Amino acid sequence: MTDDERLALLTSVMGANPMSPNRDPRIPPDVPMSAGYTPGVPRLGVPALLMSDASLGVTNPGYRPGDTATALPAGIALGASFDRELARTAGRMLGREARSRGFTVQLAGGINLARDPRNGRNFEYLSEDPLLSAVLAAESINGIQGEGVISTIKHFSLNCNETNRHWLDAVIDPAAHRESDLLAFEIAIERSQPGAVMTGYNKINGDYAGGNRVLIEDVLKGAWGYPGWVMSDWGATPDWEFALAGLDQESGAQMDSMMWQHQPFPENLPAAVADGRLPRARLSDMVRRILRSMYAVGIDTWAGDPAQTVTVDLDAHAQVALDTAREGIVVLANDGILPLAQQDGIRIAVIGGYAQTGVPTGTGSSAVTPPGGFAAVIKIGGPGIMGVGRNLYLFPSSPLAELRSALPHAHIEFDPGMSPAEAALMARRSDLVIVFGIRLEGEGFDLADLSLPWGQDAVIDAVAAANPNTVVVLETGNPVTMPWRDQVRAIVQAWYPGQLGGRAIADVLTGAVNPSGRLPVTFPASLDQTPRPELPGLGTPWGTPVEIHYDEGANVGYRWFAHHGHEPLFPFGHGLSYTTFDYSGLEVAGGDTVTASVTVTNTGDRRGADVPQLYLVEGPSTDRLRLLDFARVELDPGESRRIDFEADPRLLARYEGTTGQDGHWRIEGGLYRVAVSRSAGDHILEAEAPLHSRGFGR
Amino acid sequence: MTDDERLALLTSVMGANPMSPNRDPRIPPDVPMSAGYTPGVPRLGVPALLMSDASLGVTNPGYRPGDTATALPAGIALGASFDRELARTAGRMLGREARSRGFTVQLAGGINLARDPRNGRNFEYLSEDPLLSAVLAAESINGIQGEGVISTIKHFSLNCNETNRHWLDAVIDPAAHRESDLLAFEIAIERSQPGAVMTGYNKINGDYAGGNRVLIEDVLKGAWGYPGWVMSDWGATPDWEFALAGLDQESGAQMDSMMWQHQPFPENLPAAVADGRLPRARLSDMVRRILRSMYAVGIDTWAGDPAQTVTVDLDAHAQVALDTAREGIVVLANDGILPLAQQDGIRIAVIGGYAQTGVPTGTGSSAVTPPGGFAAVIKIGGPGIMGVGRNLYLFPSSPLAELRSALPHAHIEFDPGMSPAEAALMARRSDLVIVFGIRLEGEGFDLADLSLPWGQDAVIDAVAAANPNTVVVLETGNPVTMPWRDQVRAIVQAWYPGQLGGRAIADVLTGAVNPSGRLPVTFPASLDQTPRPELPGLGTPWGTPVEIHYDEGANVGYRWFAHHGHEPLFPFGHGLSYTTFDYSGLEVAGGDTVTASVTVTNTGDRRGADVPQLYLVEGPSTDRLRLLDFARVELDPGESRRIDFEADPRLLARYEGTTGQDGHWRIEGGLYRVAVSRSAGDHILEAEAPLHSRGFGR
Repeated sequence: MTDDERLALLTSVMGANPMSPNRDPRIPPDVPMSAGYTPGVPRLGVPALLMSDASLGVTNPGYRPGDTATALPAGIALGASFDRELARTAGRMLGREARSRGFTVQLAGGINLARDPRNGRNFEYLSEDPLLSAVLAAESINGIQGEGVISTIKHFSLNCNETNRHWLDAVIDPAAHRESDLLAFEIAIERSQPGAVMTGYNKINGDYAGGNRVLIEDVLKGAWGYPGWVMSDWGATPDWEFALAGLDQESGAQMDSMMWQHQPFPENLPAAVADGRLPRARLSDMVRRILRSMYAVGIDTWAGDPAQTVTVDLDAHAQVALDTAREGIVVLANDGILPLAQQDGIRIAVIGGYAQTGVPTGTGSSAVTPPGGFAAVIKIGGPGIMGVGRNLYLFPSSPLAELRSALPHAHIEFDPGMSPAEAALMARRSDLVIVFGIRLEGEGFDLADLSLPWGQDAVIDAVAAANPNTVVVLETGNPVTMPWRDQVRAIVQAWYPGQLGGRAIADVLTGAVNPSGRLPVTFPASLDQTPRPELPGLGTPWGTPVEIHYDEGANVGYRWFAHHGHEPLFPFGHGLSYTTFDYSGLEVAGGDTVTASVTVTNTGDRRGADVPQLYLVEGPSTDRLRLLDFARVELDPGESRRIDFEADPRLLARYEGTTGQDGHWRIEGGLYRVAVSRSAGDHILEAEAPLHSRGFGR
Repeated sequence: MTDDERLALLTSVMGANPMSPNRDPRIPPDVPMSAGYTPGVPRLGVPALLMSDASLGVTNPGYRPGDTATALPAGIALGASFDRELARTAGRMLGREARSRGFTVQLAGGINLARDPRNGRNFEYLSEDPLLSAVLAAESINGIQGEGVISTIKHFSLNCNETNRHWLDAVIDPAAHRESDLLAFEIAIERSQPGAVMTGYNKINGDYAGGNRVLIEDVLKGAWGYPGWVMSDWGATPDWEFALAGLDQESGAQMDSMMWQHQPFPENLPAAVADGRLPRARLSDMVRRILRSMYAVGIDTWAGDPAQTVTVDLDAHAQVALDTAREGIVVLANDGILPLAQQDGIRIAVIGGYAQTGVPTGTGSSAVTPPGGFAAVIKIGGPGIMGVGRNLYLFPSSPLAELRSALPHAHIEFDPGMSPAEAALMARRSDLVIVFGIRLEGEGFDLADLSLPWGQDAVIDAVAAANPNTVVVLETGNPVTMPWRDQVRAIVQAWYPGQLGGRAIADVLTGAVNPSGRLPVTFPASLDQTPRPELPGLGTPWGTPVEIHYDEGANVGYRWFAHHGHEPLFPFGHGLSYTTFDYSGLEVAGGDTVTASVTVTNTGDRRGADVPQLYLVEGPSTDRLRLLDFARVELDPGESRRIDFEADPRLLARYEGTTGQDGHWRIEGGLYRVAVSRSAGDHILEAEAPLHSRGFGR
């Protein structure tokens, strides 16, 4: 391999699209346009890297006219399913659709923990919990790579807020980092061997993620022995010296031109190799890591035109999107009004949320163009370079139409929910109101608060005052504050429910599907309960350096609430069913780690799925709350099943010392109190297991 | 002419469009699709009637793919100009564009008085005052008919609310009706001889407008001697017997099929003529009226293909749209912050109102597709058959882009105004905030209240609290309540400002244009001040019979406020300039009517236009407030001009008796106190004129 061939592997360039219509000459004519392209070495059989966004489907923000793909619900909806198998199936779908288009790399595996409920990109990720996030991300990556497509895992690490993300320094205690976000990466990488790790936009403890020697060299490649390659995020390589700190590939080089006025790797690495500033051994390492993942996943073995050889069953894939939405929907509150009764002539008002048109999705690089295209694209805009693409995308699955279809004997009217007074008029003349609350969230923007935008809280207030039989359906990517909580009879969190989201919502409301989603994030009563009531830097102009001190450390989400005794609006793990489940016969054992088993019984009158959760509630000298394991079990009425749990010992341990030096995990010897729980706030059965003191890992 | 030929003249049919794609076989293949078509009699040289909506431009809701037209601001913006010449010019533009497409009838001349600030169609009309509405409508109709195109005047009469308009009975004292809405029609028809009168959807005192013998036979054709034809509104002919009450033509027959399951005229008139239920004399009269207007306006003299023979200067027409917007914008409040100073590096936040995309227009049959198409069409929806077309249309004239262009040395950011907290963040870091408030109004819907929808009042509150230098720009078709009024430094009412509305707004804000608009409607402080704090029928389902008692009679708008001593938010006629005007030397004379003259002087330092208004403030035995005349005068700094006023005597009179029997106008003898005023609430110079007692007219 010549040096030119080797160096070319270290950069990906973006495809032409309507925003940037000139095709980069580095991309040959027969290559489909996408987020990134890196040439192969045909004479040596080294395949090119064709990279496509992202975790929720194969995106196409104008690269390939007319090319649509299956659009999954938000990642947080998958998180709410707590369903390993579903995550694997969704990953396979994603890999298959990527491969059919010739994409050898899917930029999936978004796993940043939801540390802050304002983070605009939480909808792309999975949860606030390291275990849940890691387990589901690993299944998804295994699904993708099982189709022979390289998956990334991203964004390494602590890209947990969007505010001025290019200038954001995420400050955290390194040990706490190992116990939280890094633990999620560690477990997921162990379980799925993603071909590449994508770094974040932000700094961590002063150094950019892409040039962070501690994280890349000491932790990822050192302590964990990660053999794949590390790529930057798009527009996140300001300096070529990042190569010296462990970055193997500059991504989307034109974005670096835009952000930093140069393309550091292609412009500087040749000279740096020539004059020795970049050691040849390091150059070899960079190339070897990329080649390794190509061969490990097998993109070198692809044969023929993928469009001909890779069949895609779009109906089956639509079913995956529908199943994810159905399993991800969380019924937060229900006084018995749900499921809706089939009732002749009942007058139902459907209000707001563009429910006559479709369902929203998150904005940014993860937005998939669904089959048939978007039902609507409403330009919202905002400050900074991300404002241009800040659109409210609606998928063409109308909850109104689906409800009309599911309730043929009801008389259903629609009010757009733009005015409290107008909405109340329809509510008053109806027997039942279903009011939708939506929120635009997405890449480049953090929420300023957790309220519903466009005056929707006032609409819900007015509607609930006009009609006591009000059901609220939320379609958001983050927790919502609910000033109207006690005025309504049911609250359903549907997240961004994907291309068949309207159908899934109607299925849950009418009981065609028994809800089984559980919150993968804590819903705070207010931002005052969270680690940062004020978000540093929020509202500063684009380009302002921002420091966010993640002083909660490893106490992310429910752990923080437990530690401080805050009563959340709804706890992590919470979600209602139309049947009831009983737990009995808890048995636990200790030793190196905690194992447990419990019997789950469906004590209600309809089939449904439950998500029993095993928590550490108290260690020998501390009240740490940790999700240790979880299951998802579907049971007929009266049916019981025995569930076995086993804790990853790192969840019972603390990280001590410094990674790359004396760092290791340590379990303190003593009695560990664990619980089988309905949620982080509702522990049903408790027992104690003795663990012996030990250190392990690094 | 055969009976078949005659009967065919009495119906118009709608063109094919995407909502109703089957072309009616009564429309020959070479006819452009539009709102209505009536065949001519080629062998006799009788031309066909090709009818197009409406008052604000030649519309194309899908009839003719790709055909766009000059999109004027809302009618209420033209009303705010108080500019006769502009109305004439706008009418000529409209006639020319209609004619170039072969349309022989323009369904313009909307003149219903703004009796209720919730009426969804007020934006299409002109004002709450009979004189102002009549004068401007007449100029507009004269402009249209001056281009050889028949204009309607509409909707005869009292179609002043949209709520269940097909089942709305407008109840009013007949004499008061003559002094208000009917007086507007009377004066406008005298001054412009529109070829046709279109009736309303509603009933008046129990009888549908289209079948209202009192209004059509006694008033319009009787007392006023109207020689043209009377057509129904589309879908407003439930019965063929309306022909016996004076209706000459059923419009848009397919809409009657949809509404009433039959087409009364084509299905019933042949038999009714044959068996004498429709007298042959009446049939002749119906036909003669249509033919008369064809020949009076001259559509029989058109020669050649209009697309070839009628040139359209789109640049000149765009200028008409721009001029109308500039003259229609009303500066309601200004503490001196306007016009905006050119200031290097000033940080300006533009917030809300889709200002990055364009400007809104009203929804319904008047919505014109502008050159280049809409910038956005956001489906809003709502109950009933009008919900489907209830869209937020945005014209592609972005206030944000125009402000950036007009203020090149400013740093201007945009926030979408969806969240109070988010908007406040940008407001806080800016030197100045321009926040837009928009509202969707349109055909088929009355407003439930006068607040701004989508939570915009809360956004303005938050923004004004975050930054004291806040300017509010409103784009609505009706008055707005302003809970934030005293927290902001300026308030600008831009209405729906048409295809160059963003430019006009920037021109006024920056002082490139000195504002001269005056309110053509009273802005109430709350609905409690209006004749109907509760709007009857609001919120009842589609199809519910509604009675609205217009008990205010002739005391519409400012007359009502004066009569009851209510202090409005902003009075009729109010509007600020960037210069100042002084009135002096008022002279009045009486006799048969009041004449007056006054000197207007520009006492400020920039050229500007003033609108001096002459009001009757007190009659011999009553405190009636009546706009008697108005002028619009443009003056250089220091320049003076003498203005002459003359009152239409009907404005000084009361109507007595019953139209068609003993009815007549009567002026009570005595002293009439008049004022030259800046607005209905700000009388500057007063004087008295003696009138002698007399009766006149019928």
